[in-house]
Amino acid sequence: MSSSLVFIDSSTSTASHLLPFSRITTPFNGAVSLRRSVGPLNVRPFVLSPLRTLSVNSSNNPSPVINDKSGGEASAKVIDGKMVAKQIRDEITAEVLKMKEAIGVVPGLAVILVGDRKDSATYVRNKKKACESVGINSFEVRLPEDSTEQEVIKFISEFNNDPSVHGILVQLPLPSHMDEQNVLNAVDIEKDVDGFHPLNIGRLAMRGRDPLFVPCTPKGCIELLHRYAVEIKGKRAVVIGRSNIVGMPAALLLQREDATVSIVHSRTKNPEEIVKHADIIISAVGQPNMVRGSWLKPGAVVIDVGINPVEDAKSPRGYKLVGDVCYEEACKVASAVTPVPGGVGPMTIAMLLSNTLSSAKRTHNFQ
Amino acid sequence: MSSSLVFIDSSTSTASHLLPFSRITTPFNGAVSLRRSVGPLNVRPFVLSPLRTLSVNSSNNPSPVINDKSGGEASAKVIDGKMVAKQIRDEITAEVLKMKEAIGVVPGLAVILVGDRKDSATYVRNKKKACESVGINSFEVRLPEDSTEQEVIKFISEFNNDPSVHGILVQLPLPSHMDEQNVLNAVDIEKDVDGFHPLNIGRLAMRGRDPLFVPCTPKGCIELLHRYAVEIKGKRAVVIGRSNIVGMPAALLLQREDATVSIVHSRTKNPEEIVKHADIIISAVGQPNMVRGSWLKPGAVVIDVGINPVEDAKSPRGYKLVGDVCYEEACKVASAVTPVPGGVGPMTIAMLLSNTLSSAKRTHNFQ
Repeated sequence: MSSSLVFIDSSTSTASHLLPFSRITTPFNGAVSLRRSVGPLNVRPFVLSPLRTLSVNSSNNPSPVINDKSGGEASAKVIDGKMVAKQIRDEITAEVLKMKEAIGVVPGLAVILVGDRKDSATYVRNKKKACESVGINSFEVRLPEDSTEQEVIKFISEFNNDPSVHGILVQLPLPSHMDEQNVLNAVDIEKDVDGFHPLNIGRLAMRGRDPLFVPCTPKGCIELLHRYAVEIKGKRAVVIGRSNIVGMPAALLLQREDATVSIVHSRTKNPEEIVKHADIIISAVGQPNMVRGSWLKPGAVVIDVGINPVEDAKSPRGYKLVGDVCYEEACKVASAVTPVPGGVGPMTIAMLLSNTLSSAKRTHNFQ
Repeated sequence: MSSSLVFIDSSTSTASHLLPFSRITTPFNGAVSLRRSVGPLNVRPFVLSPLRTLSVNSSNNPSPVINDKSGGEASAKVIDGKMVAKQIRDEITAEVLKMKEAIGVVPGLAVILVGDRKDSATYVRNKKKACESVGINSFEVRLPEDSTEQEVIKFISEFNNDPSVHGILVQLPLPSHMDEQNVLNAVDIEKDVDGFHPLNIGRLAMRGRDPLFVPCTPKGCIELLHRYAVEIKGKRAVVIGRSNIVGMPAALLLQREDATVSIVHSRTKNPEEIVKHADIIISAVGQPNMVRGSWLKPGAVVIDVGINPVEDAKSPRGYKLVGDVCYEEACKVASAVTPVPGGVGPMTIAMLLSNTLSSAKRTHNFQ
């Protein structure tokens, strides 16, 4: 098996946007997921000193290798998304408690699940668990596969009007008889913690404007750069992939932070020539090991959003998960790399929780 | 005098967004203007065979030099915005007449002018004249400098509710006691022919979504590329400048057409290295002659949005207008270049008229 698939809640409709470089296969059931979600821009609610400082050029950065998975030659630091996400969740837990004690308000996230897809049910369960773990209330509505668009929208409206709900997520994909845009547009922009509303995206793109929420996965990528003190301003950044949920907003975020951004996609000729100039690379295409070590500028920082299952006879499951970037090769060239799994993946749900908390804070004007 | 200024209705607040590379001087009175305005995306209401076909590589393109301003060595074709804009206005005139005859509806554009800035008055007069020349009705409200925000918004609301008005433009800059965002946000998105509403920008950024209107200047740039049959798909494009009104939406438009886009701005180190790889360059920074011939890839197509006054003892006015790109040098390297003036400038108002017509067509479901 060497299918290529980015797990975005295993939504084919969503994931297909991420796969300009490859034909998408059927949703792959189980395993790690990158989830849809959102959060406020340039708001870093959790002040934390950087875990360590990274120079973009590895030659200036002789600090020891951490968690080296690639053998003796590797020099890149591992950007530990799992650890950072844990840290963020701990910070959220403290903030939620503080808010509850101060004003008696507990942030709430509502999730609407239509139909009986097992993978969707798993994602919803994981979100619920994540909420519980940080003290955020979760609300869930499960509707049968044959529900009408109007029925779904009715529940959205109720959550829109419910002051105990600060974020609303509609689990995708919706059954094929529904118009996804119609349903998603029904979510109040003040509660659209996924951040995919065009109004949020427009504000993200515009100088002098701020979105209410930033889509969670790209927000998680940038948060990793921040937490590892990677300088963005003035750096050359290349985003590989231009999906609405990762690549495009990631490019807009990098640009807001004064990087010089290029966007590489399926129609790009010789993408390696462009990637080669990048100080920072965010890859979100769902093509296993597409970006080779030879594509990278020495000392580059690599954020790998892809989570692709590839055949692995040694694994009891028969497959393993790899990123868009050939990890072993990247470790020898880059100054820092996110692993797959354990890199961007865990950040996405942390950002969803962060967005929900921010929404509650904004609603109640709580700092 | 060697000030650097892009004329965007001489609005300092607006123009300052265009000037990452230079400090803006006081508005320069008179002369050519690039104006604020808008139009629907990927809607090419006027079918026209290309004026001529351009290859991106000049070596494949031995056709004769047109309107050579640079002496014997030049090989670039001149992209004649004045001529194309005239052609588009003629097409609009025909469409307006057709609509009137078929359903009795005449498109209408309302312009609100607050205060007594001479330059603003000139721009409003030009818009009015342009409307008249194609048969579009124009409506004008002039309010005194000391009007309140609420008074301005009251007139906007009236135009929002007036079925004979299909587009509303608030002439910028507004007096300093008003909040520009508040006022602009009052314009119905269905009549926001300037296309600067974040919802429009968000839709422009997102795959699978379409904005109601596209900002006029970047729309005019892309229209020039289309009319000259410049291939965009798969080409490397560099946008210089990241303003909300030109650079950023131009980059989004190029990306929608499958170019590989990089955005160069004031924080970019060595912009010439990036520009050197571009097949298509759109420059909108307001820095006279910043882009030199040596920055360009042979055969590149150059769209120069900058309109900068520079000292010229030979001119009776004491100055002349030049672009961001050194025209004489570019003509020797590029395959096609827009002149300044007479390139992008005339396209902007043509796109405003186009947006107003499209709005009326959409409202009345007229094809």
